[in-house]
Amino acid sequence: MGEYNISSTKYLKKINYPVDLKKLNLMDLRVLADEVREYLIDTISKIGGHLGASLGVCELTLALHYVFNTPDDKIIWDVGHQGYIHKILTGRKESLKTIRQKGGISGFLKRDESEFDVFGAGHATTSISAALGIATARDFLGKKNKVVAVIGDGSMTGGMAYEAMNNIGLLKKDIIVILNDNKMSIAPNVWSIQNYFNELMTNDTYNRFRSKVWEMTGVLDKKNSDRLRRAAAKIEGGLKGVITPGMLFEALGFRYFGPINGHNVVNLVKMLEEIYKMSGPILLHVITEKGKGPSYATVHPQKIHALNPFDKMTGIEHKKTPVTSYTKIFGTALVELAKKDERIVAVNAAMPDGTGLNYIQQEIPERYFDVGIAEQHAVTFCAGLATEGFTPVAAIYSTFLQRAFDQIIHDVAIQKLPVIFVLDRGGLVGADGATHHGVFDLTYLRLVPGMVIMAPKDENELRNMLYTATQYKRGPIAIRYPRGNTLGVKTGDFEKIEIGRGEIVKEGKDIAVLAIGNMVHNSLEAAKILSGIGIDAEVVNARFVKPLDRELLKDVFGRFDKIITVEDNTIVGGFGSAVSEFAVQYNLKNDILIHGIPDRFIEHGKPEELHADLKIDAAGIADVVKEFLYKEKVHV
Amino acid sequence: MGEYNISSTKYLKKINYPVDLKKLNLMDLRVLADEVREYLIDTISKIGGHLGASLGVCELTLALHYVFNTPDDKIIWDVGHQGYIHKILTGRKESLKTIRQKGGISGFLKRDESEFDVFGAGHATTSISAALGIATARDFLGKKNKVVAVIGDGSMTGGMAYEAMNNIGLLKKDIIVILNDNKMSIAPNVWSIQNYFNELMTNDTYNRFRSKVWEMTGVLDKKNSDRLRRAAAKIEGGLKGVITPGMLFEALGFRYFGPINGHNVVNLVKMLEEIYKMSGPILLHVITEKGKGPSYATVHPQKIHALNPFDKMTGIEHKKTPVTSYTKIFGTALVELAKKDERIVAVNAAMPDGTGLNYIQQEIPERYFDVGIAEQHAVTFCAGLATEGFTPVAAIYSTFLQRAFDQIIHDVAIQKLPVIFVLDRGGLVGADGATHHGVFDLTYLRLVPGMVIMAPKDENELRNMLYTATQYKRGPIAIRYPRGNTLGVKTGDFEKIEIGRGEIVKEGKDIAVLAIGNMVHNSLEAAKILSGIGIDAEVVNARFVKPLDRELLKDVFGRFDKIITVEDNTIVGGFGSAVSEFAVQYNLKNDILIHGIPDRFIEHGKPEELHADLKIDAAGIADVVKEFLYKEKVHV
Repeated sequence: MGEYNISSTKYLKKINYPVDLKKLNLMDLRVLADEVREYLIDTISKIGGHLGASLGVCELTLALHYVFNTPDDKIIWDVGHQGYIHKILTGRKESLKTIRQKGGISGFLKRDESEFDVFGAGHATTSISAALGIATARDFLGKKNKVVAVIGDGSMTGGMAYEAMNNIGLLKKDIIVILNDNKMSIAPNVWSIQNYFNELMTNDTYNRFRSKVWEMTGVLDKKNSDRLRRAAAKIEGGLKGVITPGMLFEALGFRYFGPINGHNVVNLVKMLEEIYKMSGPILLHVITEKGKGPSYATVHPQKIHALNPFDKMTGIEHKKTPVTSYTKIFGTALVELAKKDERIVAVNAAMPDGTGLNYIQQEIPERYFDVGIAEQHAVTFCAGLATEGFTPVAAIYSTFLQRAFDQIIHDVAIQKLPVIFVLDRGGLVGADGATHHGVFDLTYLRLVPGMVIMAPKDENELRNMLYTATQYKRGPIAIRYPRGNTLGVKTGDFEKIEIGRGEIVKEGKDIAVLAIGNMVHNSLEAAKILSGIGIDAEVVNARFVKPLDRELLKDVFGRFDKIITVEDNTIVGGFGSAVSEFAVQYNLKNDILIHGIPDRFIEHGKPEELHADLKIDAAGIADVVKEFLYKEKVHV
Repeated sequence: MGEYNISSTKYLKKINYPVDLKKLNLMDLRVLADEVREYLIDTISKIGGHLGASLGVCELTLALHYVFNTPDDKIIWDVGHQGYIHKILTGRKESLKTIRQKGGISGFLKRDESEFDVFGAGHATTSISAALGIATARDFLGKKNKVVAVIGDGSMTGGMAYEAMNNIGLLKKDIIVILNDNKMSIAPNVWSIQNYFNELMTNDTYNRFRSKVWEMTGVLDKKNSDRLRRAAAKIEGGLKGVITPGMLFEALGFRYFGPINGHNVVNLVKMLEEIYKMSGPILLHVITEKGKGPSYATVHPQKIHALNPFDKMTGIEHKKTPVTSYTKIFGTALVELAKKDERIVAVNAAMPDGTGLNYIQQEIPERYFDVGIAEQHAVTFCAGLATEGFTPVAAIYSTFLQRAFDQIIHDVAIQKLPVIFVLDRGGLVGADGATHHGVFDLTYLRLVPGMVIMAPKDENELRNMLYTATQYKRGPIAIRYPRGNTLGVKTGDFEKIEIGRGEIVKEGKDIAVLAIGNMVHNSLEAAKILSGIGIDAEVVNARFVKPLDRELLKDVFGRFDKIITVEDNTIVGGFGSAVSEFAVQYNLKNDILIHGIPDRFIEHGKPEELHADLKIDAAGIADVVKEFLYKEKVHV
């Protein structure tokens, strides 16, 4: 390929907004698709990012912006990491080079960023609900624009999609749902059938018949409209066969079209032009290939979901010397423990690699469950397992476990069931930004009666906490740790940690730093910096956010005037808040500083950049300690 | 009817456990059904409780316990308020008289209460997930027991049911889902068809054919198994017609049977006996009538969902002099505001009467949306509406809004969308107990960046807060108030409240009581008690949990040594915690006491009983203040 040069493209160089796209002939889109794909690969190979999803929707994105009049017509992308090509076509071709970097454009859709980004996302399965809200508003305002939600088959496993489709079917709104099916998540019978009377379905006469039926149902009473629709469906059903991918959607009141090849841009445009004329709830099933384009992507589609910078010829990432991640430490420790205890089962929501459950998936597949993007179900499924004496480990990213907040309370905690929650990506996750930071978990877990919350200072403690959790069995227990690399400490045999017992990791005499999780390391490094300027800080590894180590806290509060708490969780209701509640309870009058994530959403950037900005890296903590120690806090 | 006497029953007097039931002839169950129904109505007419749901499943419950070998076979009841007859049949016939009363049995299923209560509930749509966990455990243990989830059509609108069914279809577990369809919630096309080849479906030969097909699919590779199942389905489909209530379930990998009349106990037993022999995921669709039995129930099925004590001949509740509820104040104020501002739309999750949205439903039906038991979708639907300039009001009980925690953060708050959250049933709800208390909301909303949280001291303030919220438009804003009656204060014209501004409602000099919501009234009453023993307490109506009124707090902290915060929310991370964070931030050394709901789950009982137990009624607050004032807090 050599050095990439956009000015040598035939069409892409002229495309900045959808209006430019519409000047092209339909056939030119095929060349443009290749050009866009090459530009995307070249750019992401240099800076890293989500690649596979966007490669898969290259032709679909072109076709959508070619047929629909964005931004008047509203396209709502689910999750958003399939939105890179949408960004290229909507004024962000150049700024794609800054994607996911501090100060650059977001890796997801974002309303602040462009009027073409109709609804922000990051978490899965929200697009259809948002689309219904937008379509309802449109109808109130008497507008005629189209509303299109583009959602992957993975996101379709989330219950919210069903809730939204059911509601759309009931309200009979004009909404187009595009199911981008790359078969990366499979529901039985639902997505698997390819042979279909697709041509018939796009035939104009046939669709006029269906539209007619549809319209008439609005006029008729319920009984007669059902009868008519049933008759029409019977005709259609006779042609289609019975168990089809459309059944689910038809049952929910949608008209189903497809499946259609998502890489034939010409046919896609023709299909969308047909659909453009129709009304009512419509679902178009498009079959795409995640990572379509480069040969290496087709071989390892999961691998190119999100990438570091890579060689664009081979797809191989330019990775630094590999260091072990917390994810891997957890995943391998779980296998060790599960081999000794057959009651241990592992559950995740469509994230085997991200959560580290790929290890148990490989080694003990019968005790590994991927339930789809269905965190609610995941947690209550675990609760069910726990009632029968099993020890389920729910491995779900901190930010995604928010989806199961009620299930944690209602199905697990009230019943005191011994479910182990393993929250990877606690704290600031970096490039994924505000939608993905795991900075609320210490607060939302702490309010749950009976919940035990641990955060390890290093990988050895993570192993021991996991071991401790599997031995606990008295109720829910959570372990929370950050994305990324471990400290490289030696790991040993499993040792049980006493519940609610912290430790002093460095003694000192001037000030006490109470730290949790990976902030222990940063605080120890800060203590080194501080010792260089004559400040002798004590550093405490709290280990437990709940229950707090009250004995240790009393000791520390007795020995120091000034106490600072450090966490990579919101300062609202988190670890520091727990310490302040403790101080209030025991009437302790020490000066306390709660240091952590401020009460606002934090944008994307490298974790180390964000840590520095928020002064929770070593240097930042040292600064904050120094200031706290020498400057009197402002009195009222 | 006269005075009810259980000893005059023919069968019920002999029934204490399912084993007694199995001694009866099948035909005797018809008489028993009448006896059980009469006993249930008589008992609940005296003490109040959920009636309609249990009356509807009278025959179904008898049939289930007659056919299945409980508790070895596991029956998981969704929500649980359909469980009264299950309780009568499983050792709790006598204690039914104590249901929902303090110290009595729970109004829902509860594991602590009976080994027959396999999985606790209270919130909807959890049963299928729990059933899959239990069935998975069974298979690990090599047991052969049946696992049955009984779920209403209302609960079926919740996305978690779909997540669970999809997962069951994938795992092909032996699970029976009983859809108890009383048509109180309707999804289009899905539940509406009655005429069905039901007899054919229960025919043994036919089912053997289907079972065979099912089993073979396990042996064959994916392609061939799909082909076989498709062929089989085609045969079946030809018989059944195409759009059927079963389509949705068949698409998810279930074998669908029904609909069947849920009040013919003999047929029910026969059907369940057939199903007992089958394997794989099975869904039995049973049509029931909510409130089946008394004529008044059939006329007003919603009315008898939950009742106070009532006249068993007429169904009319023995109600005290009616006082206006907060629910009604909200509902009518919303109509007033919506008439003046056509951007206001109201959204709820299957609770029009409970939330007070029945008023707007009646008066401005086009701006009223009931999305089903689908809180996640409700919130993101609101977010979509808000992007287009509307002012959506999401009226969802405090405890149920927990379901949409992630959507509040991800879809509303990150995008700073002006969605108004109206949380009825904040605080202790009473008879519904631990699953329903709204005692976490101040904490889980407070951690959300940009969220404004208000709680009114009385009905006039509720009106003004709602008005303020509709004018706010800068981001999410929540109003939280308790179940039950207002104070009876005069309401006036709408007045805007300054965001983050509290008020001193009673000046004092000895101690400051900072109260929120309905705790303001209790604190004022406490102040009266205290003044009788010479303590002059100042009472502050905080109004806002977020943002706090910092100026007012500084003033109060400057004037009083001792400050007590009072809330009917958990003391973990709630209002008092916010005040302690404030005190820490400003280095204020006052003695603070955080008073509220302790960090454990609170059982059922009348709100006034629970308030007294937890010392958050007037007398209790007075006690706590007195003790705090006179007794030094324990130092370390």
